Amino acid sequence: MHINLRRFFPILDWGRTYDRKALSSDLIAAVIVTIMLIPQSLAYALLAGLPPEAGIYASIAPIILYAIFGTSRALAVGPVAVVSLLTASAIGQVAEQGTAGYAVAALTLAFLSGGFLVLMGVFRLGFLANFLSHPVIAGFITASGILIATSQLKHILGVSAHGHTLPEMLVSILAHLGEINWITMLIGVAASAFLFWVRKHLKPTLRNLGAGLLLADILTKAGPVAAVVATTLAVWAFGLDGKGVRIVGDVPQSLPPLTLPGLSPDLVGALLVPAILISVIGFVESVSVAQTLAAKRRQRIDPDQELIGLGAANLGAAFTGGYPVTGGFSRSVVNFDAGAETPAAGAFTAVGLAIAAMALTPLVYYLPNATLAATIIVAVLSLVDLSILRKTWGYARADFVAVAVTILLTLGLGVEVGVASGVVISVFLHLYKTSRPHVAEVGLVPDTQHFRNIHRHAVNTVATLVTLRVDESLYFVNARFLEDLIQNRVTQGCAVTDVVLMCSAVNDVDFSALESLGAINLRLKDMGVRLHLSEVKGPVMDRLKRSHFLDDMGGQVFLSQYDAWVQLSGKSTVTAPR
Amino acid sequence: MHINLRRFFPILDWGRTYDRKALSSDLIAAVIVTIMLIPQSLAYALLAGLPPEAGIYASIAPIILYAIFGTSRALAVGPVAVVSLLTASAIGQVAEQGTAGYAVAALTLAFLSGGFLVLMGVFRLGFLANFLSHPVIAGFITASGILIATSQLKHILGVSAHGHTLPEMLVSILAHLGEINWITMLIGVAASAFLFWVRKHLKPTLRNLGAGLLLADILTKAGPVAAVVATTLAVWAFGLDGKGVRIVGDVPQSLPPLTLPGLSPDLVGALLVPAILISVIGFVESVSVAQTLAAKRRQRIDPDQELIGLGAANLGAAFTGGYPVTGGFSRSVVNFDAGAETPAAGAFTAVGLAIAAMALTPLVYYLPNATLAATIIVAVLSLVDLSILRKTWGYARADFVAVAVTILLTLGLGVEVGVASGVVISVFLHLYKTSRPHVAEVGLVPDTQHFRNIHRHAVNTVATLVTLRVDESLYFVNARFLEDLIQNRVTQGCAVTDVVLMCSAVNDVDFSALESLGAINLRLKDMGVRLHLSEVKGPVMDRLKRSHFLDDMGGQVFLSQYDAWVQLSGKSTVTAPR
Repeated sequence: MHINLRRFFPILDWGRTYDRKALSSDLIAAVIVTIMLIPQSLAYALLAGLPPEAGIYASIAPIILYAIFGTSRALAVGPVAVVSLLTASAIGQVAEQGTAGYAVAALTLAFLSGGFLVLMGVFRLGFLANFLSHPVIAGFITASGILIATSQLKHILGVSAHGHTLPEMLVSILAHLGEINWITMLIGVAASAFLFWVRKHLKPTLRNLGAGLLLADILTKAGPVAAVVATTLAVWAFGLDGKGVRIVGDVPQSLPPLTLPGLSPDLVGALLVPAILISVIGFVESVSVAQTLAAKRRQRIDPDQELIGLGAANLGAAFTGGYPVTGGFSRSVVNFDAGAETPAAGAFTAVGLAIAAMALTPLVYYLPNATLAATIIVAVLSLVDLSILRKTWGYARADFVAVAVTILLTLGLGVEVGVASGVVISVFLHLYKTSRPHVAEVGLVPDTQHFRNIHRHAVNTVATLVTLRVDESLYFVNARFLEDLIQNRVTQGCAVTDVVLMCSAVNDVDFSALESLGAINLRLKDMGVRLHLSEVKGPVMDRLKRSHFLDDMGGQVFLSQYDAWVQLSGKSTVTAPR
Repeated sequence: MHINLRRFFPILDWGRTYDRKALSSDLIAAVIVTIMLIPQSLAYALLAGLPPEAGIYASIAPIILYAIFGTSRALAVGPVAVVSLLTASAIGQVAEQGTAGYAVAALTLAFLSGGFLVLMGVFRLGFLANFLSHPVIAGFITASGILIATSQLKHILGVSAHGHTLPEMLVSILAHLGEINWITMLIGVAASAFLFWVRKHLKPTLRNLGAGLLLADILTKAGPVAAVVATTLAVWAFGLDGKGVRIVGDVPQSLPPLTLPGLSPDLVGALLVPAILISVIGFVESVSVAQTLAAKRRQRIDPDQELIGLGAANLGAAFTGGYPVTGGFSRSVVNFDAGAETPAAGAFTAVGLAIAAMALTPLVYYLPNATLAATIIVAVLSLVDLSILRKTWGYARADFVAVAVTILLTLGLGVEVGVASGVVISVFLHLYKTSRPHVAEVGLVPDTQHFRNIHRHAVNTVATLVTLRVDESLYFVNARFLEDLIQNRVTQGCAVTDVVLMCSAVNDVDFSALESLGAINLRLKDMGVRLHLSEVKGPVMDRLKRSHFLDDMGGQVFLSQYDAWVQLSGKSTVTAPR
């Protein structure tokens, strides 16, 4: 019982050894992360199309719940760019941005996503996330980064534009170019340029000036805060909001409110698939961050328990005015680098954000949306990495196709179609590759007991004996290929009396392949040819023994290919019985 | 050019050596097959919900076109039970049975199916059929047999009933039980009993009476003809059609008419998916029959050319008043057993059927539908083979699940949902199996250079060295599994300094797995552990060399696992440099 509780509440694990040293490390990390999270949370809420406070609320309860249920000691949970984009795309289809229905749909999305994650965790279905291949994720993240950056252009230009795909957005922005607000654009471009400079050049500059590594790092991460402060002051001082610059405006001063997600069947039906997608993508991103950080301290995380932790965080977001959350890369790395030792650091961050929500929100009244858009653009452009196209092209064409299709369809048809197509095409390409396995006809290397490809090496062969080495597990997708291949090979050589399948690389033979082997055996019998197997692996042999195939087989099963050669060719230094 | 023509027109191949002996064999086979096909064609048209002549028309042009383009020498093309059921299910959704629109939809279905098959053949996409695993096909055929037999009960009982799923059909029959026509039922039950007896007992009885094997075979196959003649005479003699027995009635006396498939976008849109399904299922059934028969004479067929042959046959059906066709099992076996040597036998059968269509159709005026239903029921019950459930249960649970799901969903939700779910579930189960590959931790068998599982054998190990043998290709679905596994193993053993992945059964490493290996390598480095590879296959090594992974790897690539052991453990009879 005790052990069970610790499995489901990892807090019982690290909580009992919590000491003063860990406390001070966690407190320092929490202060740093809180400062970074305030502008980031406001910005991601803007990206999701929600009021700014939603971003802060989404960072409070979820962080605490993850601290209780999650297994990573450094992961920081909250709104992230890609999930915010997915949220905007999903709820944009059921409600108009700015309406009460829109915010309720965001809660529903978080609720469904949380429920799905918890279910996956309880039933230990974390492996389902593996269906997203690395190329598909990389292509999807890159395309999402481009989509997100483009979606923020309207805030930089001060125009109103719409659309969930790249062509829609570009057309919409071009149509509204006449409405550009030049002061907004000045603020947006200046903030973007400043943030790019901070990201690229501030850290080396500070280091040259003699700053410590940690200080330089913190100041660099605080760049967005500086941009927020400077542009807010500028708007306030010059009354720019009266000149058409859109500002954040009133943000309620309160702790996260208690909210209820909408659960009407229509709404749930419309958001179920997007919720699953958000869960899986959020989980994949979160686990890879958590695993990377855990390895640095020789710790481990439990992916199935992570599902429960992230699920609890999303359920928390659903009941406290937030929207879907996951473990974010940048905030987690900051948390880790700032020295967070336990999930308590997250809890302290939550306290910091709660104080900000109650006390500091009036300070962002004059904050221009263009500044938030600039922080988003600079942050997401680091996600855009088109080198994945070059890398996969050089390594494996199938992976290249998966990346290219995912990027093109995500940009052209939207995030949901893009990622779904990516999954389907990677599965298909994998099956296609294994549908035509590498099969080598082999012969005996002279003076050895080794067998090699007859087309690549000088080997001994016998006209009556064909030996084929299959370099793939046999299953339904390639079973018929083997039937064709053997039938073709044997109809070519009239002298053939024995066919040996060398199975050293066959890790599995499914029922379809078993039936194909049976068909091959019968057809060979009809041609007066015997079928033999050699070097069959233990688990495969156990399974074959449970069928009738071995009884019906014309030939034998040889432990080694050399045994088969000696007995069937009659040629060896040892005189074998024929 | 010459060779190309022979590839696309196999008739040029066998046509040039056609002689008097082949002619007489083919003529005899044609007469036998024609006699068998007349009742069968009428019955399958009834099953498809089409007028009886459609079944005969669908056997004439398609046979001739297949003779020109097909590669099998014995395959007999025409209406078959499962495809007739699929046709009824597909066009029942777009038109009312008995209307002109229904017959036109059947032509459209044949046209789309033919077009799709030709395209698959031209682009050599025959491998797509492999996505239907044997268990899915077996489950689908069995469930279809049950559905077909049930669908014919209404003709046996003389009631009108509807439905495309088993529950629908049973409920509908029960609701109409009050309308039973007892004379129809008498005919139907008697015909069924007679046909069952013929199928089970006539051949042994005849053989006991001294009949030759071929004669006994032919008389057995002619059973349906006898049932047709006897019941037709009974209806005519006693005027049973006036007592409510439904009869075939007027069948036009004509050669196949020239028809045009309907090509309105709505119709094409509604029938496209069913047409693809019919094509693939028809192709799979046809190829397996053709391949089995070809092997008996040490011949071969070309699956991609078969697609073109079957496609041409379906296009022929679309323009001559037919409906979708494929290579049938029973008719092909009869054709083969009767001695058909070339596709010319098929052409002669077509001539026989054309004569029947012109001259003999008045003779079937009084033929009761109940007799046709009886021939269908007896024929399809031989397709029902529930032993596939037992066989797959004993051999592999994943295959059992695929069969069970396919059968249940085909019966419960219809043929299209059933087979589509079967395909999806087999792909999913295959990926699931490979998502948790067998990984053995291995050690050195004393006094050898062999490595075996440490949990199964008494082997030597070293605390600083972990060697893992992965028995599966590494790709996106199992890449993360390996990451977790290695991280867990290394965090357990604090003394570990070296991890060797033994890759003798790894046939491929895709881009996702490459990135996972990269991540594993970095995380191990963070823990102060080196990653090594051993026994990497040539093609995998070639690919790894095209990436940066080998440059970044903490350890080395060893040609053999024994080399790795000697160098990393320092323990061997040979003193190795450390």
